[in-house]
Amino acid sequence: MNAESWHVVAESFPASRKVYRAGRVHPDLRVPMREIALHPSSGEPPLTVYDSSGPYTDPAATIDIAAGLGRLRERWIAARGDTEAYPGRRVQALDNGLAAGGKAAPEFPVRQPPLRARPGKAVTQLAYARAGIVTPEMEYVALRENLGRESRAGTPRDGNSWGAALPEQVTPEFVRAEIAAGRAILPANVNHPESEPMIIGRNFLVKINANIGNSAVTSSTAEEVDKMVWAIRWGADTVMDLSTGRNIHTIREWILRNAPVPIGTVPIYQALEKVGGVAEDLSWEVFRDTLIEQAEQGVDYFTIHAGVRLAYVPLTVARVTGIVSRGGSIMAKWCLAHHRESFLYEHFEEICEICRAYDVSFSLGDGLRPGSIADANDAAQFAELETLGELTRIAWARDCQVMIEGPGHVPMHKIKDNMDKQLATCGEAPFYTLGPLTTDIAPGYDHITSAIGAAMIGWFGTAMLCYVTPKEHLGLPDRNDVKTGVITYKIAAHAADLAKGHPGARDRDDALSRARFDFRWQDQFNLSLDPDTACAFHDETLPKEGHKVAHFCSMCGPKFCSMRISHEVRAEARAQGMREMAEKFRAGGSELYVPAAQEGSKPCG
Amino acid sequence: MNAESWHVVAESFPASRKVYRAGRVHPDLRVPMREIALHPSSGEPPLTVYDSSGPYTDPAATIDIAAGLGRLRERWIAARGDTEAYPGRRVQALDNGLAAGGKAAPEFPVRQPPLRARPGKAVTQLAYARAGIVTPEMEYVALRENLGRESRAGTPRDGNSWGAALPEQVTPEFVRAEIAAGRAILPANVNHPESEPMIIGRNFLVKINANIGNSAVTSSTAEEVDKMVWAIRWGADTVMDLSTGRNIHTIREWILRNAPVPIGTVPIYQALEKVGGVAEDLSWEVFRDTLIEQAEQGVDYFTIHAGVRLAYVPLTVARVTGIVSRGGSIMAKWCLAHHRESFLYEHFEEICEICRAYDVSFSLGDGLRPGSIADANDAAQFAELETLGELTRIAWARDCQVMIEGPGHVPMHKIKDNMDKQLATCGEAPFYTLGPLTTDIAPGYDHITSAIGAAMIGWFGTAMLCYVTPKEHLGLPDRNDVKTGVITYKIAAHAADLAKGHPGARDRDDALSRARFDFRWQDQFNLSLDPDTACAFHDETLPKEGHKVAHFCSMCGPKFCSMRISHEVRAEARAQGMREMAEKFRAGGSELYVPAAQEGSKPCG
Repeated sequence: MNAESWHVVAESFPASRKVYRAGRVHPDLRVPMREIALHPSSGEPPLTVYDSSGPYTDPAATIDIAAGLGRLRERWIAARGDTEAYPGRRVQALDNGLAAGGKAAPEFPVRQPPLRARPGKAVTQLAYARAGIVTPEMEYVALRENLGRESRAGTPRDGNSWGAALPEQVTPEFVRAEIAAGRAILPANVNHPESEPMIIGRNFLVKINANIGNSAVTSSTAEEVDKMVWAIRWGADTVMDLSTGRNIHTIREWILRNAPVPIGTVPIYQALEKVGGVAEDLSWEVFRDTLIEQAEQGVDYFTIHAGVRLAYVPLTVARVTGIVSRGGSIMAKWCLAHHRESFLYEHFEEICEICRAYDVSFSLGDGLRPGSIADANDAAQFAELETLGELTRIAWARDCQVMIEGPGHVPMHKIKDNMDKQLATCGEAPFYTLGPLTTDIAPGYDHITSAIGAAMIGWFGTAMLCYVTPKEHLGLPDRNDVKTGVITYKIAAHAADLAKGHPGARDRDDALSRARFDFRWQDQFNLSLDPDTACAFHDETLPKEGHKVAHFCSMCGPKFCSMRISHEVRAEARAQGMREMAEKFRAGGSELYVPAAQEGSKPCG
Repeated sequence: MNAESWHVVAESFPASRKVYRAGRVHPDLRVPMREIALHPSSGEPPLTVYDSSGPYTDPAATIDIAAGLGRLRERWIAARGDTEAYPGRRVQALDNGLAAGGKAAPEFPVRQPPLRARPGKAVTQLAYARAGIVTPEMEYVALRENLGRESRAGTPRDGNSWGAALPEQVTPEFVRAEIAAGRAILPANVNHPESEPMIIGRNFLVKINANIGNSAVTSSTAEEVDKMVWAIRWGADTVMDLSTGRNIHTIREWILRNAPVPIGTVPIYQALEKVGGVAEDLSWEVFRDTLIEQAEQGVDYFTIHAGVRLAYVPLTVARVTGIVSRGGSIMAKWCLAHHRESFLYEHFEEICEICRAYDVSFSLGDGLRPGSIADANDAAQFAELETLGELTRIAWARDCQVMIEGPGHVPMHKIKDNMDKQLATCGEAPFYTLGPLTTDIAPGYDHITSAIGAAMIGWFGTAMLCYVTPKEHLGLPDRNDVKTGVITYKIAAHAADLAKGHPGARDRDDALSRARFDFRWQDQFNLSLDPDTACAFHDETLPKEGHKVAHFCSMCGPKFCSMRISHEVRAEARAQGMREMAEKFRAGGSELYVPAAQEGSKPCG
């Protein structure tokens, strides 16, 4: 693969500029946000929004995929003095599935020696939080989350948080306390210094994850890096690399070195590749080796299906769709083949030791999640959840950060039970759910069947929503699917933030609604989650320049635009007392085209 | 427009055939359903699903747009002996917006004299229900709704209906009683005998409506007829013709004569056209004339914004988005201009007399619905709702059928309040909501922002969901948008039916999930809401014939297919006791490609 084959979208959003805020505890912090400028006629300041897109949307940044991103956290990690560099594990052909030959993808050109905890040290954000230390990472996320709250102290709150404790102001100390309590995680492997700190917890903004990754059937390194950059552009807060084909190690390296968001993986996938795809041949040794390999690369969180215990497997036999988690089915097969307890469960404490040495967060996998409405909330699912609660306590005892994965396919009336049971069973560790899909009958539209469930469970308390794309159940998502999935899940997450009553969550809605009511079309596009699509849809029927200042659109046409008429109503009602108004209206008639409030609009794209 | 310019899709769905069921009270009924055949390897009978698509999906039916559909209900109406044919109102150039010239669309070739109630008679389904009469229409909907329930008597129920009383069996008597109580409506204008009876009520399946119609800016008669047929193909239970451009009368005639679903309109739109688009010039006389014009054509329900009272208009002045209902803003403007109470409100009893003479159902419009998250559940909205409750009682007193329109833009935590207040205020008259949209920040994706709210409010008790397309707020939907909107809303409605616990609602989910788990790809496509898209998405990466019997897809590839592995786990767990199994697995290895269970699959399209 040569340099030209890299294609990533690195450009700012329309009317947007990247701004950075400094810390107080750590004044050298540069916390990125996006400011969306509004038309002068609005009389409004720019709107500041959360920005997951990294340096790719900063015109001042130099993007060089072959060099990787700047190592933002390197100094912070070094300053703590509790890690040591070491040569690291040797990368082998087997790591890329090339032991028997095959075409190797080009390696990432630079290799830094990995870091790990010095003997006796815990280098996790949880360990620091418990020790009362506010790390730069913690202050970074405080600034990032607090977005707009400084200015709104005392604004009335509106929402139902279902018991979440959303603070007026997100302070560094609040972040520390939430991490210390296990209610939030800050995934930040010491070997992924490129990542911009973010937090996952019920008392913070709801986050979303995008899955990428090749499969044995399709896709390449360049495509996956492009998908990662594309996913974070549209709002993915973390990205999971679920590659299962060849060149897994190399693809992951390119992704990590260019990822400003935490990267998660499911290490059992690579371990299975190492044993030729035969689940029975998996062993603790192969798995352990894979964990260290990935921890050294900088993976920020591992999905570990340690809750799939031998005794639970028979509970899945009568299910309509059996076991639908890849990791879960692999472990179930291993357990049955050996008639032994899962090696993940038995070696869980050793796994914790590895995670503790690099600060890899746990995402305890729900290997027995329901894969159909019929199987929702069944005995297998909830038996595993109990075990995940037990593992959470073990991990916490070793200073490891933990979140818990959740379903899956769940009809609406069974969603809240999932949240309530998870909170109770897992001591309020953050919940990280896939959807859930609220019906099985719409393959091709499962981003929608699941957005319904995702918005609801996000409202009830899920901290991060794993996206589902339109290709779910049908094939590997391409970059269009990635974008659709991300935007759909930003909608679900934001709907949840609104309903929970996050201070300031409504700012963007209100700014966009004001722009809509004022016919500031360009502002409406710029403020939307997907300015390109909003503008393109508008322009399909009204492409002319002048239509972007028109006081109507093609949906209702000029005579029937309720907002235009409503302006006339409002103007009169405000200018006059109700009584005098009638005469005026009768005399004055109505203008169909009101003078443009906005100039200088551009066509989209 | 010549014959060739008509294009409607008239073909059956893959693996599907149209079946008809006869009545018991009325043995001549032929109630249409769709049977989806499954592959013989499934050992399952065909799945029967609700079918809104009319004769267009029956290969035995002759479709001739210029002749219109068969007049299914004509004999039933005549047999009641309470209507009379009369010459009817003369159609004028003004009706089509052509008083000052302009190009007339070709008229529908056939004109039947309209029917109306004989003096002193009420010909509404509500009047019959109250009189204890089970009409053929009522038995028709009982059969239609009961879909699959005969065979499942005694099956355990699963759901939370929030107080809805879902019967084990939908009997004709149950339908009659629900209509008599005002809890359901059966929209069935005596002048729309082409329509296949359907019912809208909280104790029945959740229905969806699709809006079509031209605007002054775009679209033609042929396009609108095509959109209507297209919308019902994908599942629209009713269609509203919201045309506001020229040739309104003619477009509506073509639509009605070819529509097997109830057609709704907002008569104020046409009335406004008749007065040149100047709201102040509207009068009761023009409006009354329009009601009769449309009632004679066969419109099944009228949206009437009689709840927008003069005193409520000032409540909207401080809103972020004012009045966003077209009808609401027109009436508000009229009220202010004349400083008078709304003529719709003042003449409501006369409107009832008209509706009673043709059996036009009321859809009491929410002219003051919120148009943004900021305005949700405000004083203006709930003041109007009180008035809608008052009007409901007036209409009921005159034997008129009523449903109530609802919002709009509402964050998730305020949705249930809307439902609860509507039930309490309007005496359980059916609720008919637009979405609601749960956030304002995603123009271009408002089918999704609103599907979240629609699924929730449908679960809580809304009887019919008005779709929102991706073009909402941006432009007039085209036929692709119509399809996306309909499928999205079928998802929301079905998710609601599942959560409410309708007997049999899960049948299709379960059949599709079994097909999925069995790798019956073709069955999976055929059972889905949109077989074309499901098949096309699958074929993007695995187009070959053999892939439709493969035990994996491109998402995970063969080695990581959890369902494939799960089959191996299940087969072993079933064949063996747990103890012997371990040895077997170890010895036998695993096959990656399992012999195909299904043959004879075809490529899609």
